[in-house]
Amino acid sequence: MGEFELIRRYFAAPALQQSRRDVCVGIGDDCALIAVPQGKQLAVSVDTSVAGVHFLPEAPAHSIGWRALAVSLSDLAAMGAQPAWFTLAISLPDVDESWLAEFSRGMADLSQRYGVALIGGDTTRGQLSMSVQVQGYVTPGAAWRRNGAKPGDIIYVSGRLGAAAAGLRIAQNLVAEGLSIPDLTVLNDDNCGMPESDVVALKSYLYPTPRFDLIPMLSSRVSSAIDISDGLLSDLGHLLAASGVGANLDHNRIPCFDHLDMAAELCSESALSGGDDYELCFTVSPQRRLELEVGAEQSRISLYPIGMVTAHEGIRGIPSNLSTGFDHFKGNKQ
Amino acid sequence: MGEFELIRRYFAAPALQQSRRDVCVGIGDDCALIAVPQGKQLAVSVDTSVAGVHFLPEAPAHSIGWRALAVSLSDLAAMGAQPAWFTLAISLPDVDESWLAEFSRGMADLSQRYGVALIGGDTTRGQLSMSVQVQGYVTPGAAWRRNGAKPGDIIYVSGRLGAAAAGLRIAQNLVAEGLSIPDLTVLNDDNCGMPESDVVALKSYLYPTPRFDLIPMLSSRVSSAIDISDGLLSDLGHLLAASGVGANLDHNRIPCFDHLDMAAELCSESALSGGDDYELCFTVSPQRRLELEVGAEQSRISLYPIGMVTAHEGIRGIPSNLSTGFDHFKGNKQ
Repeated sequence: MGEFELIRRYFAAPALQQSRRDVCVGIGDDCALIAVPQGKQLAVSVDTSVAGVHFLPEAPAHSIGWRALAVSLSDLAAMGAQPAWFTLAISLPDVDESWLAEFSRGMADLSQRYGVALIGGDTTRGQLSMSVQVQGYVTPGAAWRRNGAKPGDIIYVSGRLGAAAAGLRIAQNLVAEGLSIPDLTVLNDDNCGMPESDVVALKSYLYPTPRFDLIPMLSSRVSSAIDISDGLLSDLGHLLAASGVGANLDHNRIPCFDHLDMAAELCSESALSGGDDYELCFTVSPQRRLELEVGAEQSRISLYPIGMVTAHEGIRGIPSNLSTGFDHFKGNKQ
Repeated sequence: MGEFELIRRYFAAPALQQSRRDVCVGIGDDCALIAVPQGKQLAVSVDTSVAGVHFLPEAPAHSIGWRALAVSLSDLAAMGAQPAWFTLAISLPDVDESWLAEFSRGMADLSQRYGVALIGGDTTRGQLSMSVQVQGYVTPGAAWRRNGAKPGDIIYVSGRLGAAAAGLRIAQNLVAEGLSIPDLTVLNDDNCGMPESDVVALKSYLYPTPRFDLIPMLSSRVSSAIDISDGLLSDLGHLLAASGVGANLDHNRIPCFDHLDMAAELCSESALSGGDDYELCFTVSPQRRLELEVGAEQSRISLYPIGMVTAHEGIRGIPSNLSTGFDHFKGNKQ
């Protein structure tokens, strides 16, 4: 199958292109043409996922398509931007039609959830990898930057951490044992014989959810934000460095995903350094803390205060045996 | 060297980031933030270049950086859009600092020519490849589409064709002989012993120039346009298919690059099917023909009428022994 036929069949499908008023010309010309709404800034982010580096090539193609888009969308959520449209540059070692059909279905399932339209891309032969560039809209001045944290601000995370790291280990073990990673979209009654916590962990890893649901509630209350893709300590570190500040964390308040088969220390290590959870980490000034927590309760959204921004740089409050677990995870990261 | 240090050193350099009023936030946060000028549509295109498929890995890194940006910018030129900003998603098998320095210098040399700013990207480990997404601005309704050609319109190309295909063959021969492809930015007086036409051909292949210079002159006079990346017959074929029309070409009027060492028939075949020239192919209604040709003469720009749009589909007027050369070139294409 040629490139043009492949694009027509799997990427120019209505499920991925969708109808949006701002998309004047989509796939099929030299460029797409977009009418950015007046009074909005364009937020732009691109992420590349390489097989064997950023995802397990043995994962179901549906989840690879979902995840490639999700990790990019998460950067929009981290700035408080509403998703609008995206491009896909994909390299394929060969044309496997059933794989492509599942990949594009997974990407379409997530794109439809947020009404984000595929407007163009490129398809080439090469090592399996995909670059997804997402664009969203934000009111000028309203974007959450990394560089706005002030000493005294409270540091929050938006959910339990470490589930995706546990899910990655489960998936790697299945592959090592010669078993297939189950398609979580068609699980049978007994979850393929897996414990419920394994299913939750796998789902966290294979189907991350960008936290756009937080935007209305956090809106103007946040002084800085980042999404947790590489691990809490690493990503919080970027935020603190951009703001020229440090942090005192309360280790016991970091919300860990409880996995039945994992030692407490491994749970804690996964939460600090595991990555792939795509929760948000953000800061809020003490004056806005009450307003935020009331808003969260009204919205039935769980937020977890984990520490405070300090004037001195660096992260304190983490037992040294845990904070050194970081490189180990980076080395293992798929 | 880590990813962040690599980005800081080679891609966050002022030469590539540049200062633009529409770029509110560039590299360094979760997203870049752009204020698209009021009254402009955004034109968007992404192209992936894979080593060994779209470029010779043995080419000077400076030219690889230039070319990766140029082939994407050419899609903006083909729509009549002014270049504004771009992203780079690059995969590297390893960190070769001297290669990276030359690659980013080549990309910066072209980006500075048009004032187009690098606003973000992603750096990953993998097979050498790069996806460059370019964004430009165009007045609503003014973009040149592929689908506007009408029977009776004159078909033009904007320059001699086939030089890049000849350059590719010269480069491939050098590599096959174990010789290096010369750095054309530092040629000595005797052109490394190469004939002048070889230097011109190599330069056409390694340093394509997007034809933004044509935009003011062509402006509202064009009924459809495309850039010639895959070869005249292939790209004109896309334009005709999008417009639902065909073409009668005057084979003798197709401007071929004259290469001293090449048979006339090979020159002609390169011009029809060689690709990589990044000239524009466009159509103009008979009523606007005189106005266009006067404008071109005043601007000292050479345009070449090569045939006419017809109601019946397909391309006529090309000797069958030449039009069948197409697949052969595709198979050879680097």
